[in-house]
This record gives sequence, C-alpha cells and structure tokens, in this order.
Amino acid sequence: MSARMPIPFVSQSDPAAVASWLQALRAAMPEEEIIAFSELDEDQRAQCRVAIVANPDPAQLKLLPQLQWVHSVWAGVERLVADLGQSDLQITRLVDPRLAATMAEAVLAWTLYLHRDMPYYARQQQARQWQPLDYVLPEQRRVGILGLGALGEAAAAALRQARFPVMGWSRSARNLPDVRTYSGMDGLAQMLAQTDILVCLLPLTAQTRALLDAARLAMLPPQAQLINFARGPIIEEEALRQALDAGKLRHAVLDVFATEPLPPGAWPWSHPAVTVLPHCSAPTDSGTASAIVAANIRHYRKTGEIAANVDLKRGY
Amino acid sequence: MSARMPIPFVSQSDPAAVASWLQALRAAMPEEEIIAFSELDEDQRAQCRVAIVANPDPAQLKLLPQLQWVHSVWAGVERLVADLGQSDLQITRLVDPRLAATMAEAVLAWTLYLHRDMPYYARQQQARQWQPLDYVLPEQRRVGILGLGALGEAAAAALRQARFPVMGWSRSARNLPDVRTYSGMDGLAQMLAQTDILVCLLPLTAQTRALLDAARLAMLPPQAQLINFARGPIIEEEALRQALDAGKLRHAVLDVFATEPLPPGAWPWSHPAVTVLPHCSAPTDSGTASAIVAANIRHYRKTGEIAANVDLKRGY
Repeated sequence: MSARMPIPFVSQSDPAAVASWLQALRAAMPEEEIIAFSELDEDQRAQCRVAIVANPDPAQLKLLPQLQWVHSVWAGVERLVADLGQSDLQITRLVDPRLAATMAEAVLAWTLYLHRDMPYYARQQQARQWQPLDYVLPEQRRVGILGLGALGEAAAAALRQARFPVMGWSRSARNLPDVRTYSGMDGLAQMLAQTDILVCLLPLTAQTRALLDAARLAMLPPQAQLINFARGPIIEEEALRQALDAGKLRHAVLDVFATEPLPPGAWPWSHPAVTVLPHCSAPTDSGTASAIVAANIRHYRKTGEIAANVDLKRGY
Repeated sequence: MSARMPIPFVSQSDPAAVASWLQALRAAMPEEEIIAFSELDEDQRAQCRVAIVANPDPAQLKLLPQLQWVHSVWAGVERLVADLGQSDLQITRLVDPRLAATMAEAVLAWTLYLHRDMPYYARQQQARQWQPLDYVLPEQRRVGILGLGALGEAAAAALRQARFPVMGWSRSARNLPDVRTYSGMDGLAQMLAQTDILVCLLPLTAQTRALLDAARLAMLPPQAQLINFARGPIIEEEALRQALDAGKLRHAVLDVFATEPLPPGAWPWSHPAVTVLPHCSAPTDSGTASAIVAANIRHYRKTGEIAANVDLKRGY
C-alpha cells in the first residue's frame, strides 16, 4: 500500500480548530500527507481509503468513493453513527488514556465540589452569611457512575482513592475492583436508589437517550446531586428542572446540553441549583489524540488491519 | 492516682457545643467523671490536675491550683500558647489522623476548584457566556504547601495522587516522598517563586504572623492562586487585597480570618477574586477527637506520663 495516498481531515469545526488539528496530526505522522478535505483534488478523492474526522459533514464523506475507514479524533461518535449507520464503513473513536485521566480528574473535582457543598457556600458568601454545614465523611457519600468504559473506570478509581463508596452501572455486566457494579434496567433502579451523587459518563445511543427521565430521577434519594459530563439528551431536561425546583434534587452540574453552546435564554444559566459548564470537563488533547491516530494508521499501513472500535448496532 | 478525680471541660464555646463535647468525651471514657468547669465545687477545683479544653477562659484555668496538664480538643493552640506561655503547664493539642484526612480532602477539593477554574466558570455562568479555557495538565500546575506537619503531609500525599507537582516548606527541614521540600527564609523565597497554587497550613506563631506580606506575595508567579486553611493573621490582609486588585494574584480561597465570623462589612465577602468559607475546611470530629483524648488520659492514669506535644517556645 502506498504511503503517498493522502489522508483527508474532514471537519466542520472552525478554521482555527482545523488548522490546529492539521498541525498536530502532521507532527504525529510526518510520513503521511494529511490535508484538509477542501484541498483534495478529484484524483485524490477517488483514491482515499482513510479519513480522519472531527464532526465531519457526511456529504463530504460520500464524495470519497473508496473510503473504508473513518477515524474520529473524538471519543463521542453519536453523530457519526447516526450519519453513517447505513454504510459499511469501519469507524474508530478515540480511546485516549490521557482523556480518561482528565475526565477522572473532572469527576473527582466536581464530586468534591458537591461533597464539600461549594454551591451552598457560594450562596452564603453572596448573602454575607457565616454558617458552616455539618461535615459529611466521604465514606458516607455514595457515588454512582453511569457508564463503565475507559472513562468510567478511571473515574471510579479516582473516587475510590478519595474514599467514596463507588457504584457503577453499565449496559453489560462488568467487574471492577472495589466498585459495586450493576447492569440492566433492574440494576439501574437498584443503584439509583442508593446514589447520593450520580455521575453520567454514558455514550449517547438510542438506549441512553432520555434514560434519566422523571421516573428514574425520582428513584434517587432525597437531596441527591447529579453531574452530567456525557451528553445532554441523556437527561430529560424538563424532568430535571422539575426535580430541582421541587427540592428533590439538591444540585446539578451540567457540562453538556442538547444545544451547545447553551443558548443565552436557556433556564440552566440562572437556576440557583445548577452549575453550567461550557463542555470543559475533559477536552481532547490534540497531541495525545494525534499520536493515537498515528499509531493506528501506521499499523494499517504495515498490516492492512483497521483498528475499528465502533459497533454501529450498539451505537458507540 | 484516683480515677475519681473529676476532669473539667473548660470552654467558652456556646452551650450547645459544650453539651455536645461533654457527651462525646463521656462516651469515649465512661470510667472518668467529665464535668463542665462551672459544675466543679471548691474541693474539686482544688484537686484537678488535668483539664480538657476548647478555647478556655484562662481566668478559669487559674482557679485550678493543682493543674498540670491542659489537653485541647483542637489542633490550633495559638490562644492557649499566648494565654499560658508564662506558666509551667504541659499542653497537648489534638493530632487526629481523621482531621488530617479531612484537611487533605479539603486541600485537594479546593486545589481542584482553582486548577479547574471553577471561579471563572461561575462568573461565566452569571454572564451567560460559553467560553471554555484551555485545559492545563495537573503536571503543569505546581502546588506549594506551607507547613509540613500531620496536615501538610497528608495534603501533599493527596495532591501527589492527583498528579500535581508538590513542594513544601516548613520551619525545620523535612523529607517527604515525592515532595520538593524547603526551609528557612531563603527556602521560602525559592518555593514561592515556583508556586502556582499556594496552600497555607501553618500554625499561627510569632514567626508566622504576617509571614505572607506584600513582599512575599510579590514573589509568587503572575496569576498565582492561594488557599488559606490555617489562620487569618498569617496573611497580611491589605497586601492580599492589593495583589488581587492589581491582578497579580488570580484568586484566593479564604477559610480563616483575623476576626471570625467575618464581619458583614468586610471586603472579602464581595471581592470577585475571593472565595469566602466559614472556617469549614476541616472541622474537628468530636468522636475521633474524644477517643484520642481518652487514650492519652488512660495512659496518664496508668503511668503518670503526660502526652504533651506543644512547645511553648516554638509556639505550637
């Protein structure tokens, strides 16, 4: 296989982001010719078998008749799956230990934020009130993680180090050290009933869309708190709002939304029991991501093997 | 030595707090007669050799002519040292692994709060602005701890687990695993110059009062951040305010103040670069604290040995 066949980078991101990705990808694999989709000539389009993508326009991918393999630089691929579900393309999503470490740090940071009542103390400061709350031991604060892939596993380990009792739920049953694991819809109900802080790290699929609806949010103990670092549509936003308004849930940290950026008129911005974050929990590191893409492409050049890891039926 | 000699609990805390301490202390050592100072009769006062204290009125301690040993249920003893410095009383302050663990958790929680730019994101939310900052790896965020006693050592270990490079400064030179340690005033200047997040865990003594003055705050790198979980007067408040106003320091988390509760008119309440906490970083746990006091008193009953650990000259 010729190493001269160019590899397009296909993305609808803004030009600065595209330029930054091109730079990182070229640095990681100087032996390859990585070019923006718009720079491909007819001849090159006809030859491409591999594309590296970040939120690509599916119409552009259709202009590559020989395309076999789509390698995303992102971990979340629900749009790719929706756009390419009917194709026979092979798809790789980013599985980056660096990303897992950054997500685990975010989960620990915002779990401690809720555990140590930082939203309450911020309100106290605004009111110039000096009123410490009783301290709760981490051993008495039960954390439940939804999703036990690479991110969930790293998050569970960080939370265990901080002495929280950790439970985890996943589609298929899993075993993790020092984590009580659950699976299936009965397992989900069991876990929710014991969860003081719920951390959502699930991929968005047909099965997880609106998984946390009014009924499931009502399974949480009174004054439970919630962190969503996965995808907005996994939580039914109106059900969440009602649970917060009714004081059934104490606080929610939301980093992801159905529409991003969150529109200026959206209710979470001004809700006293919501912390809004701008999708910053675990940004992809273009350096480590490019190194992983480069390793997969080198392996392909050498062996013809495609390191696909997305199951279109499963949805991630 | 008769086990019937009553042990007074001497405290200026409010009646509810005194009742709660009496309950915890009695539960921890049912073999002793623990009574509030005000309940002692003349005869009992004349016999007391041991007192358990929490912010005691020194005038009350002077009414105990046989007193040899003052055991505080608190870790900070600067008032006791100031009040009793001229006496030949032996003094024990609380060294509780539970307290060290809670302080280490607080240091980790609020270091992550600053590391992950939570104050910035809170301001963004108020302005309904969606603007993620570049992510900084923990490996690139240097944390310096002032004070390497039981609390500083536990905090350093928690920060190392979270992959921060950790430095530590103490009065006398110390060795800690994976921590670059400094001592003396030259060492302090060296450490401050490299510290992105400074965590103060020092005892308040004649040497540490106003240790962080304008000159020393100016040694920190631009945009450094600061956490004070020790005692208010260690930082010169006006110098801190000027460094924050000038944008030299990015943010300060203050849990302790020269006057507590912080008066409603005090400037930190409304400063956008200050997080005010109501002395909540590491509350004493009356259960574990009482167990430690009980163990020390049992040892004394058995052997006559006093587990004093406060050096009046050193100040803590």
